[in-house]
Amino acid sequence: MTTPPARGVLRVLGIDPGLTRCGVGVVDVSPDRSARLVHVGVVRSDPAAAIEQRLAIIAAGLRAVIDDHAPEVVAVERVFAQHNRQTVMGTAQASGIALLVAGERGLPAATHTPSEVKAAVTGYGAADKRQVQAMVARVLRLDALPQPADAADALAIALCHAWRGGRAAAAASGPLTPAQRAWADAERLARR
Amino acid sequence: MTTPPARGVLRVLGIDPGLTRCGVGVVDVSPDRSARLVHVGVVRSDPAAAIEQRLAIIAAGLRAVIDDHAPEVVAVERVFAQHNRQTVMGTAQASGIALLVAGERGLPAATHTPSEVKAAVTGYGAADKRQVQAMVARVLRLDALPQPADAADALAIALCHAWRGGRAAAAASGPLTPAQRAWADAERLARR
Repeated sequence: MTTPPARGVLRVLGIDPGLTRCGVGVVDVSPDRSARLVHVGVVRSDPAAAIEQRLAIIAAGLRAVIDDHAPEVVAVERVFAQHNRQTVMGTAQASGIALLVAGERGLPAATHTPSEVKAAVTGYGAADKRQVQAMVARVLRLDALPQPADAADALAIALCHAWRGGRAAAAASGPLTPAQRAWADAERLARR
Repeated sequence: MTTPPARGVLRVLGIDPGLTRCGVGVVDVSPDRSARLVHVGVVRSDPAAAIEQRLAIIAAGLRAVIDDHAPEVVAVERVFAQHNRQTVMGTAQASGIALLVAGERGLPAATHTPSEVKAAVTGYGAADKRQVQAMVARVLRLDALPQPADAADALAIALCHAWRGGRAAAAASGPLTPAQRAWADAERLARR
């Protein structure tokens, strides 16, 4: 179990869903938008294993991260049907597992599109992966880019959620979207 | 808990994955291909609820069906990316949950495409839904078509798995596909 976040700091678990490599990144984000790395890693499953066993391994790995680091909210990269059809279904299934595990632990979850993540982290929605990774390393004051890329992506998703959600919730005048509601709930918890 | 199947009879749980309505059907299939209805139903989740809560509700509902009826194998309809993009991701996530629940209960799982299901049940891969439902009702000696359609589809998937897997495993000369391996394992269990 990691040290709990300081008062007012939001701990976010970002997940880059995948069957073979599922990136996980936990960050503590302060109200002034500064951020600290809590955990980064990858949950792997053997491509030769049966799909039902692979999904069970991923679920177990994600539960372990939640139990070890106690995030207050889970952010998952949104999967699109128009991507590579051979892998998109596995990615979608892994994203379902990520959301399920959040729900079963009583954590709010939100999804963000790849371009939302890029825009939130670099200020530019068409940024390339390398630019996103470099910015993640800089924000978290890491000596090197997190490896593999799935792990760096997970950190970017977590940062995106904290930064976007925070502003969105503060600016919202109408009913909250699920992501905004998740943030608002998480903020409330973080301030207790 | 339902009565266990007779010796040599395979109990299959068929799942028609969906977020709003997830069809579930349990059938006992004899080596002579005759079949008996054990359970049919639908696990529902509220479209207004958060996705992580919907997936948790579906997982809990599927686990309850497995615990109540003790199937030996789980068959899930395969989802395709080219279908309606607005719902396909939710369906893919629900299918991931179905496979996960099977894996976590130690059950082999297999997926079948809609046309495999139609062909196995009616002998015709382009059969319409009504023809499939009518054949399911006839095979299981039901007085009426199972309602809603998702429940009937789940029964068709279960029958498809028993009928296709059985023949495929018997005829297989090369390495088994995951579905065939699942059947072979299930047959072995059923014969103990």
